[in-house]
Amino acid sequence: MAQPKVLIVMGSDSDFEQLEPAWKILSELGVECDVRVASAHRTPDTVHELATTARAKGFGVVLAAAGGAAHLAGVFAANTTLPVVAMPIANGTLGGMDALLSSVQMPPGIPIASVGIAGARNAGLFAAAILAAAGGPIADALASYREQMKERVTKADHRVREQLTS
Amino acid sequence: MAQPKVLIVMGSDSDFEQLEPAWKILSELGVECDVRVASAHRTPDTVHELATTARAKGFGVVLAAAGGAAHLAGVFAANTTLPVVAMPIANGTLGGMDALLSSVQMPPGIPIASVGIAGARNAGLFAAAILAAAGGPIADALASYREQMKERVTKADHRVREQLTS
Amino acid sequence: MAQPKVLIVMGSDSDFEQLEPAWKILSELGVECDVRVASAHRTPDTVHELATTARAKGFGVVLAAAGGAAHLAGVFAANTTLPVVAMPIANGTLGGMDALLSSVQMPPGIPIASVGIAGARNAGLFAAAILAAAGGPIADALASYREQMKERVTKADHRVREQLTS
Amino acid sequence: MAQPKVLIVMGSDSDFEQLEPAWKILSELGVECDVRVASAHRTPDTVHELATTARAKGFGVVLAAAGGAAHLAGVFAANTTLPVVAMPIANGTLGGMDALLSSVQMPPGIPIASVGIAGARNAGLFAAAILAAAGGPIADALASYREQMKERVTKADHRVREQLTS
Amino acid sequence: MAQPKVLIVMGSDSDFEQLEPAWKILSELGVECDVRVASAHRTPDTVHELATTARAKGFGVVLAAAGGAAHLAGVFAANTTLPVVAMPIANGTLGGMDALLSSVQMPPGIPIASVGIAGARNAGLFAAAILAAAGGPIADALASYREQMKERVTKADHRVREQLTS
Amino acid sequence: MAQPKVLIVMGSDSDFEQLEPAWKILSELGVECDVRVASAHRTPDTVHELATTARAKGFGVVLAAAGGAAHLAGVFAANTTLPVVAMPIANGTLGGMDALLSSVQMPPGIPIASVGIAGARNAGLFAAAILAAAGGPIADALASYREQMKERVTKADHRVREQLTS
Amino acid sequence: MAQPKVLIVMGSDSDFEQLEPAWKILSELGVECDVRVASAHRTPDTVHELATTARAKGFGVVLAAAGGAAHLAGVFAANTTLPVVAMPIANGTLGGMDALLSSVQMPPGIPIASVGIAGARNAGLFAAAILAAAGGPIADALASYREQMKERVTKADHRVREQLTS
Amino acid sequence: MAQPKVLIVMGSDSDFEQLEPAWKILSELGVECDVRVASAHRTPDTVHELATTARAKGFGVVLAAAGGAAHLAGVFAANTTLPVVAMPIANGTLGGMDALLSSVQMPPGIPIASVGIAGARNAGLFAAAILAAAGGPIADALASYREQMKERVTKADHRVREQLTS
Repeated sequence: MAQPKVLIVMGSDSDFEQLEPAWKILSELGVECDVRVASAHRTPDTVHELATTARAKGFGVVLAAAGGAAHLAGVFAANTTLPVVAMPIANGTLGGMDALLSSVQMPPGIPIASVGIAGARNAGLFAAAILAAAGGPIADALASYREQMKERVTKADHRVREQLTS
Repeated sequence: MAQPKVLIVMGSDSDFEQLEPAWKILSELGVECDVRVASAHRTPDTVHELATTARAKGFGVVLAAAGGAAHLAGVFAANTTLPVVAMPIANGTLGGMDALLSSVQMPPGIPIASVGIAGARNAGLFAAAILAAAGGPIADALASYREQMKERVTKADHRVREQLTS
Repeated sequence: MAQPKVLIVMGSDSDFEQLEPAWKILSELGVECDVRVASAHRTPDTVHELATTARAKGFGVVLAAAGGAAHLAGVFAANTTLPVVAMPIANGTLGGMDALLSSVQMPPGIPIASVGIAGARNAGLFAAAILAAAGGPIADALASYREQMKERVTKADHRVREQLTS
Repeated sequence: MAQPKVLIVMGSDSDFEQLEPAWKILSELGVECDVRVASAHRTPDTVHELATTARAKGFGVVLAAAGGAAHLAGVFAANTTLPVVAMPIANGTLGGMDALLSSVQMPPGIPIASVGIAGARNAGLFAAAILAAAGGPIADALASYREQMKERVTKADHRVREQLTS
Repeated sequence: MAQPKVLIVMGSDSDFEQLEPAWKILSELGVECDVRVASAHRTPDTVHELATTARAKGFGVVLAAAGGAAHLAGVFAANTTLPVVAMPIANGTLGGMDALLSSVQMPPGIPIASVGIAGARNAGLFAAAILAAAGGPIADALASYREQMKERVTKADHRVREQLTS
Repeated sequence: MAQPKVLIVMGSDSDFEQLEPAWKILSELGVECDVRVASAHRTPDTVHELATTARAKGFGVVLAAAGGAAHLAGVFAANTTLPVVAMPIANGTLGGMDALLSSVQMPPGIPIASVGIAGARNAGLFAAAILAAAGGPIADALASYREQMKERVTKADHRVREQLTS
Repeated sequence: MAQPKVLIVMGSDSDFEQLEPAWKILSELGVECDVRVASAHRTPDTVHELATTARAKGFGVVLAAAGGAAHLAGVFAANTTLPVVAMPIANGTLGGMDALLSSVQMPPGIPIASVGIAGARNAGLFAAAILAAAGGPIADALASYREQMKERVTKADHRVREQLTS
Repeated sequence: MAQPKVLIVMGSDSDFEQLEPAWKILSELGVECDVRVASAHRTPDTVHELATTARAKGFGVVLAAAGGAAHLAGVFAANTTLPVVAMPIANGTLGGMDALLSSVQMPPGIPIASVGIAGARNAGLFAAAILAAAGGPIADALASYREQMKERVTKADHRVREQLTS
């Protein structure tokens, strides 16, 4: 069976800049993904079509990015049993709190899990972790990504100690 | 042309108690309404069908009640050009702030207008006001409802003055 | 009977920039509207006069824009049975949360419905939807506006797919 | 010149229980006050009449109690130059935060000062302090009220010390 | 008896810019005021001395401006029976919500009334209204200030109507 | 390869009642799970041991339930590349907003995805969806769970229509 | 030199129930403490006297418990260089958020550190940790308290595993 | 016994600018401190090693700075009985409210005390106060720092009085 892909959907292409780190990290980790613009409110039929066919088309995770009254992830979750990860976008004047609550506070029965506000990189990493739940090359890629992060922090630690503590 | 009706939709029948004042006040004002249970997340196809056919079936306003990540009004608004009024339900632990923000913070292009948290009576009155925008018997019923309210407040004022100020 | 007009009122002309999209979209949709500056606090008599005479002057909807302790929509609603739509303005340091709550949390009996913070375009669209509750040319204009939005999102989708997914 | 009186107004007689401590403390301090039920939304003409005539009738302070989208104090302040003190009532599901912001965040030019949520006793004390700004018997009554409070705290301190620290 | 003065106190001279409109409007209205820098936390003895002697020195109102954990107004109120008006300053990252709550949520017995966040002009106007509670020249100055505001709004209304509605 | 299991961890056994729906739904769906009590703060070594060995022991998802400063999911995520789903518990006085923000606002690099406050059932469903990302019997169980939900809502809809609309 | 004591102060004896766990845990750990009732607002002179003499009387830490506009810790900190730990009390309708912000958001120069809302036990433990900063018997008592907690969690873990996982 | 040192830890070196005032004030007060970069999420083993060995290495206080879901202080507190002071960093879009709640709302048993958002200077001062709980040269340095602050405020007071009140 082929490795499932990630479907990344944003409600508006003006959200692309905030979404981009998700797409980048997935590429780095060797996870195939499609990026789509589809709005729960402006192109509901496209969203419906994407959601109902996602599993059959080989997607294993949906990552939905939206701001304000962020309904995109919810509408996806209503139409697929794939795991749907919300990425709340911070637009407007409330710092993304509206998008976070609109995403995360789903009624019992239709789950969404949300990363933090503007948490695109983590959304990508979480999607990868889902695909690596049973191990395999993506799990290895995640482990090695962790090692690189650890090294960067350790180097920063050395740099700061040299500058301040001596 | 027949007087348009009001379509009242709640995401769960457990919300009925909070919704009831909307249905009652519309009945008192002589506005015909249908009450339906349909969930943006659990029965999305029902919601889609209700929304896309509402205008043709003679509805003039949709009143959508939901709590938490309240997507019901948004999904209606995405599928009809009728005015959709959200009624945020206070369930869970955030006092309905999640439902309010999920309802009101819609992206440009697809409008919703929301009454206050648990504001069922006002949702009914607002639906009536929409249908009475050009006057007619509902406008008269609203005016007379206002007079009755005024009288009740005036009587309460007299009662309190007698008790306290004498 | 003539098509009812929309009365747009702002509490201060410094709010005009945030209000402008409402006026523009109504013009595009062919809805006649008057724009007024009147403050619930600084010119209460003007507001009272506008509210009590609005229906007789042929208005069918009032759109009231104000920030902070936003009382404008409430004072209108107290003096007319026309539907009053609040447009909370984001000024000051609380991101418009004060204006939203001051607008939306009305006591039972006097309804207001509010669009989102700084949601001028949607306020205009909602006012149009009210006037189109029973169908007619504004309903057609709204439907065609929706089609144009849909096309723009679909084009953005194609553009993004070409750039990223190939 | 006679000692100015305090005008206490509540938007609904259901708020009376929360308001009562204001009236009681003013009575204790020997300040004359009238208590009225008048709603900015349901009986706007009564509010207008009360506000515009308050100074001439011998009132020196207005204390306005309201919950939710609390516009009462603002409407009073718009129609009198007397000091208007808001008392935000905690009703609904937001703990009175809506009433606090609706009261306190007034636009420049029309001031309101607000006590805390459900702060009736303090509203009464503040009204008394206003009337005692230039000294006189109410100032003496306030000073003696302070002394009594101090004694009560001091006694509680002794009681606790005896119980715990010995 | 001489007209009482207003004591304006700020916790830090970095707050001066936010405070200035209070001082300016009081000067315009012909109210004498002293402006002091005194911190509840950094110069508590100065605050204590100012508070305990304020009435005897001829002050009738204290206006206390502070940000963050804004204790200045509370410490004043603890040491004088004069009316103390808080002016919450918006510094830091919470938009002044911390200063508002620290000011307004006083325990029963020691009242403070607060204007809105960064509401310096209104704080000045409210202080003037306190001194004008029994009428006199400051009441006249306030009434004429209101008239000027009304004219400015009315002119803005005309300007907007000419530009947009014609 | 065996079907991965779900590791459910709660910070305190007093959270069990809020957690229980996760365990129940997973059992219903035929997903094997272990339930553990381990605290990021009180038994950090147990958490570390659980996290670092989870993948090797055959777990595919970690579900971490905690309230207040909810660090449990974060500490798991720091020590495993498995997907970690946070379930914020509502204890204390802030309605679980503290637990939600402590869970969801993770720094870039170490992802957590969170369900809503007190969203145990959804946490279980989301864990199942992760394990069903590539299809299989759990995907079928999820699909049939959805159908049952849909039927319940449809029946409630019929019941309400019979009672109210006739 | 004698072991410094802890001074526990509450603004009102009605806060005692929320404060009690601090006093109890300190007793268990063998730390001597005095408990006092003193209000920053109602008995400011007592607070001033306690603060300015605390170090000389052998106290090493002050623990100040207050709710609402919680100024007690700040007033202590203004008058002593001892570490002052705030314990925000949850009273009123805002869940203690007012007390938390009033305590923690101190201006630069006069530090307070705050435990969580209603965090009396932790306030006591933190006071003990301060006195044990350089080691000694209190450090040993803290370490052994930790061991007991760990055992309780471990036992709860075994209990739950037996019940659910078998 | 040697004077204990302060261990300052930040989760990311990008937080250094916000942290710097802590390090500076400790240097000014003559308190020795080490500054480290260690992340609860990215280098958990480093944090564990730092925490478990801190007391033995001569540290008396840990100051942990982190933003967002700020778990650093909690993870330290879980692994040492030294007093751990959290310094919530304001990054992201929520003004540091996430970091404050993630830091301060610790479960009973493992205490953290937190300074205000971005309160680095106060964190340093509080760490010093802990080390000076039993008096000594740091207590003297703190007292003299207070005197300098007092003088600066007093000078600002004079400057303002000369400019405005004359």
